[in-house]
Amino acid sequence: MNHDQTVTAPDDTSATIERALATRDLPTITAELAPLTASDAIGVLERLGAKQRALVYRLLPKDRALEVFEGLDPTLQGDLVQALRDEEVASVFAELDPDDRVSLLDELPAAVATRLLHDLPPAERHLTAAVLGYPAGSIGRRMSPEYVSTRPELTAGQSLERLRARLDDAETVYTLPVVDARRRLVGIVSLRDLMTAAPETPVAEILRAPHSAQATEDAETAARRCADMRLLALPVVDAETRLVGILTVDDALWILEEAESEDQARIGGSEPLRRPYLSTPVRSVVRSRVVWLLVLAIGATLTVQVLEVFEETLEQMVVLSLFIPLLIGTGGNTGNQAATTLTRALALDDVRPRDVLRVLAREVRVGLSLGAILGSVGFLLASWAYGTPIGTVIGLTLLSICTMAATVGGAMPLIARIVRVDPAVFSNPFITTFVDATGLLVYFFIAQAVLGL
Amino acid sequence: MNHDQTVTAPDDTSATIERALATRDLPTITAELAPLTASDAIGVLERLGAKQRALVYRLLPKDRALEVFEGLDPTLQGDLVQALRDEEVASVFAELDPDDRVSLLDELPAAVATRLLHDLPPAERHLTAAVLGYPAGSIGRRMSPEYVSTRPELTAGQSLERLRARLDDAETVYTLPVVDARRRLVGIVSLRDLMTAAPETPVAEILRAPHSAQATEDAETAARRCADMRLLALPVVDAETRLVGILTVDDALWILEEAESEDQARIGGSEPLRRPYLSTPVRSVVRSRVVWLLVLAIGATLTVQVLEVFEETLEQMVVLSLFIPLLIGTGGNTGNQAATTLTRALALDDVRPRDVLRVLAREVRVGLSLGAILGSVGFLLASWAYGTPIGTVIGLTLLSICTMAATVGGAMPLIARIVRVDPAVFSNPFITTFVDATGLLVYFFIAQAVLGL
Repeated sequence: MNHDQTVTAPDDTSATIERALATRDLPTITAELAPLTASDAIGVLERLGAKQRALVYRLLPKDRALEVFEGLDPTLQGDLVQALRDEEVASVFAELDPDDRVSLLDELPAAVATRLLHDLPPAERHLTAAVLGYPAGSIGRRMSPEYVSTRPELTAGQSLERLRARLDDAETVYTLPVVDARRRLVGIVSLRDLMTAAPETPVAEILRAPHSAQATEDAETAARRCADMRLLALPVVDAETRLVGILTVDDALWILEEAESEDQARIGGSEPLRRPYLSTPVRSVVRSRVVWLLVLAIGATLTVQVLEVFEETLEQMVVLSLFIPLLIGTGGNTGNQAATTLTRALALDDVRPRDVLRVLAREVRVGLSLGAILGSVGFLLASWAYGTPIGTVIGLTLLSICTMAATVGGAMPLIARIVRVDPAVFSNPFITTFVDATGLLVYFFIAQAVLGL
Repeated sequence: MNHDQTVTAPDDTSATIERALATRDLPTITAELAPLTASDAIGVLERLGAKQRALVYRLLPKDRALEVFEGLDPTLQGDLVQALRDEEVASVFAELDPDDRVSLLDELPAAVATRLLHDLPPAERHLTAAVLGYPAGSIGRRMSPEYVSTRPELTAGQSLERLRARLDDAETVYTLPVVDARRRLVGIVSLRDLMTAAPETPVAEILRAPHSAQATEDAETAARRCADMRLLALPVVDAETRLVGILTVDDALWILEEAESEDQARIGGSEPLRRPYLSTPVRSVVRSRVVWLLVLAIGATLTVQVLEVFEETLEQMVVLSLFIPLLIGTGGNTGNQAATTLTRALALDDVRPRDVLRVLAREVRVGLSLGAILGSVGFLLASWAYGTPIGTVIGLTLLSICTMAATVGGAMPLIARIVRVDPAVFSNPFITTFVDATGLLVYFFIAQAVLGL
């Protein structure tokens, strides 16, 4: 594609863009660029310094960006890629807030993205990935651009030759994504398949349907898919299914390990530490825990209020207060059991948010069974020690609390997922607080009814 | 090695062994075999039926077992391997209790082990692994015997030829263990290295030092090593570092996923389900939870007893009972935070049991900081609502409980590991119960001291 390269952009567009650049006013630049044709845009770009050109180029919409890139002089293409990798340029986009990012940064065309990432040391990839428009936490930030691909019309022998040329620098040589002439992912072929096939076999005959991940997809979801499918590598594509990178199983493992550390920390009611325990400063450990503790303690003032309501009942029968820790403790344990099970089932994709009614139905039954067992034991022990009326209160309360706690605990993680909160955050600590307060209400209502207070 | 194959074992040895076989009295057979030479043992074996021969053979000590195997007629070798795979024979060893297993079952020689496992469908490997003497939960039960190995004196080209011959059936062709003439693991070489090297390069020049796992080692530890080292496969060796199998990264992933499900379930106070949640019968879900709930509830009767001791104090000041759920809840939360963090750090090998004193020192400081913050907030709020004396009691109690809970919660998982209990079991549920009871004691002592009751 060749474009008329004479400068056709009106001078005032260029001037406005230069003013906007000075104040980092990206939305204005986007607005100015919108009406320009590709050749107008090239004209504007050619007037700018390297870093400014990179900033402006990155704000072009995806289709225009490809046209502009292809219309640029090859030397300028190289300069542009270099400038897009520049730390200063990258940081402008890295610091965009997420909403602006979505409205301002279209994906870069795969042709540019691939050149941009190619040959970058892993340490620098992360910053550059921000330039690509892949959100934080997405697999686009974690994938490797150093893949070896092949084409359906090449033979197994030719593919092996391609691969041999990249033995030194490719992230993996054991899985080759297969792409068509427009860089679209059409399959994968393993080195084992290439070695097994006769050298003249076309790749088209031995390729397998590819599992893949979208570059903007959550890194944990993509890593889990790589693991569940037992793949050594998962190709990563852009919104047009063009290949932009690859996720290898060893990187997937690290992503999953991080995610699981995070889940466990949240189940335990603290924020994940992000570094090995012994090398985390005590101050950071305190910070990772104190917010949740305060939130939970303030939530627990609810229990103080509930008890205040029943202060008179307590004064009449102090014996009722003896069972408070046992009853709410059992409720908390029952709720946590259910919440932990469902949080894990969600993480493993064994359960989905739309199963919420089935989960509720199951947990009601589980809770009733547990309540029946614990309630019977509680009734016998408490009757023996404090007489049948107290025994009856304890038994009935355990039955009710277990049923309620299992149901709430089981439903919470699914509801968290539905409202897009990390299920691990929303589950155990909240459940404990909720179950504590509700359990006390149930306890005193039952006590008043049975004991006639 | 050739042995004199005439029968030299005294008839009474044979007779004793046959009687012991009838009653499955394995220790007697071991004792009878102990004084026999290899050729005597061959004599005894030759008199027995195929299944009985397998049973007796398996009870030979490792060095003798190799000599006997090599002394057997090749047809008999084949029959013996076949019989060792027999379900009935395998089940005799599978049902041995762990102590008997250790005293009776030496490892099989690698030469026999490899033949025994070779070509077995994965479903049957598990049972056969029991015959090999690898304990339940060991990596020997999970590894694959279908590896392709090479030798240091072979060239890269020759190794590639070996590999090509196994493309269809090997578990992985991307990592080749390198073994010497006595089958001892001396290195590993990747397919990528083999392809990069000139075909005439000896493997000795390109092999890397191998990471490996002992077949008797815990499966989770081995899988974690495979993941941490970012290996595609980890060779598995016997006690004499002879190669017996390979663990591939995809199998390592499954092992880690199971282990993490188990940890999370235990942190949540239930037994792991071992199958997807929705397909687990409600009855099994109840069973996975009820035992822990009962144990914890019975533990919680401790809190009833503590409160009973202070019943008089409670009667004097019912207001004290209002704070019970809040105080023990905060203690439980603080303890669980510490326990979860340390359980995870242990699983990731970030912390080891011998770090217990460093962990204690850190958690005391963390607990004091958390206690100071929560205690101040508690003091202010409670003073405002119930007056300074009550505020002082609440503030001091929060300070003490947080310090104690963080320390106990941090130390528990390490102590569990030291006494060889799963840290996840021993941590959160127990901590909650312990902290509840201790916290109440602290609360009432402080209340009596401050309020002069």
